Amino acid sequence: MKLTSKIFNSHPSSDGDFFLGMKRILGFKPKSLEIYKTAFLHRSMNKKDNEGNPVNYERLEFLGDSMLGTIISKHLYNEVPEGDEGYLTKMRSKVVSRKHLNELGKDLGLLKYVESRIPKAHFGDNIHGNVFEALVGAIYLDRGYNYCEKFINERVIEPYVDIEQLEGKVISYKSLVIEWCQKEKKPFNYNVYEDTGKDELKHFAVKLTIGDRMLAKARATSKKKAEEKASKRAYFALQSRIDNK
Amino acid sequence: MKLTSKIFNSHPSSDGDFFLGMKRILGFKPKSLEIYKTAFLHRSMNKKDNEGNPVNYERLEFLGDSMLGTIISKHLYNEVPEGDEGYLTKMRSKVVSRKHLNELGKDLGLLKYVESRIPKAHFGDNIHGNVFEALVGAIYLDRGYNYCEKFINERVIEPYVDIEQLEGKVISYKSLVIEWCQKEKKPFNYNVYEDTGKDELKHFAVKLTIGDRMLAKARATSKKKAEEKASKRAYFALQSRIDNK
Repeated sequence: MKLTSKIFNSHPSSDGDFFLGMKRILGFKPKSLEIYKTAFLHRSMNKKDNEGNPVNYERLEFLGDSMLGTIISKHLYNEVPEGDEGYLTKMRSKVVSRKHLNELGKDLGLLKYVESRIPKAHFGDNIHGNVFEALVGAIYLDRGYNYCEKFINERVIEPYVDIEQLEGKVISYKSLVIEWCQKEKKPFNYNVYEDTGKDELKHFAVKLTIGDRMLAKARATSKKKAEEKASKRAYFALQSRIDNK
Repeated sequence: MKLTSKIFNSHPSSDGDFFLGMKRILGFKPKSLEIYKTAFLHRSMNKKDNEGNPVNYERLEFLGDSMLGTIISKHLYNEVPEGDEGYLTKMRSKVVSRKHLNELGKDLGLLKYVESRIPKAHFGDNIHGNVFEALVGAIYLDRGYNYCEKFINERVIEPYVDIEQLEGKVISYKSLVIEWCQKEKKPFNYNVYEDTGKDELKHFAVKLTIGDRMLAKARATSKKKAEEKASKRAYFALQSRIDNK
């Protein structure tokens, strides 16, 4: 009976849930589920492998941190040909800052997969970023470099890496837009609503109206980010209108 | 006339030499020669691209440094399952230490390709390691991750990364062997000779005789390394002899 149940439960439903969760987050199917499980395993679980070595996400975090830095480096190298070594180093450290990684981990909703004996409420903010890095390490080992690069492009670079903002030239496009509206005495409205659509992750959409025109739309994984994205679009639309005057 | 000479010299002989030199060092054919040239371009040349951005090896060094760290991280992750995050970080920084990278750059004879207005004799030791890192960055951009990993495996990990030595458990296998010989009152001899053979890089071979037996042979890119490699082999051969007594 035990053997039969083993055969029939070779993919127990919790594994199935985890598989689907990972697929949703990764944007592709994981091959070895085991390595992703390790990416969410907190040291408090005291898990050990067959040789008695501790198993938790910390080693994967070490690996993912390094891979993340390399892919961001390549992106900055290609995007900013005028930036010297010192500039690239500074920009990279902004992209992979603790604060930024914690945000990324939160947006992806990684905490819910963490296995720990410590109540999750007791964790500080860093758990989000640590597990995010461990996840990158797991992708590297499971599917290799190209999947890592694709994941980081889609989940980090495209939605969040804005060179102008990183340079501190622009702190917030939303504040620039509001400032402009106030100066020009135009009413403005950010209409935000949930719009997950066919996407696997929760998304918000925003429509930005200035005066009586809907000037920009945007979607992102948080309200704040959607507003910022729409503001950036509106900002550039407004700039060309100003230039054409 | 100028046009004709341009057509006939589209691969001037200096390019041909550089191509062959790179092929020898890399172990594969470069695709874009330009990027490898940049890897050897010192800032003193004051070269600029069409947009007026400075072109020299420093940006590639930034990129290569990161990629090198990532590939070494993966190697250590796989090789030392018992090492925690702190251990892995420490070991990686030993492998990619300035001293080690300078040695690697020297062994590969990279200095002769450096283009600089400063006489090469005026450079410190770091030029070797810096250009080595830039070369890794160039491979990354020219041929992608897999070629980088292969290059680093062949040129760094296989010949030079010894976990026991990095851990400081063994400082030098040669000194262990000599100690053993003295204790056992056995005469020993390191017979070193140049043996580049079909290899593209200069190599040395060594035959280590202990008593009247030739106990180990080894080849490497320097005398010291060949001796160390042969000593390591002899050390393990001696250990099994001791154990079998």
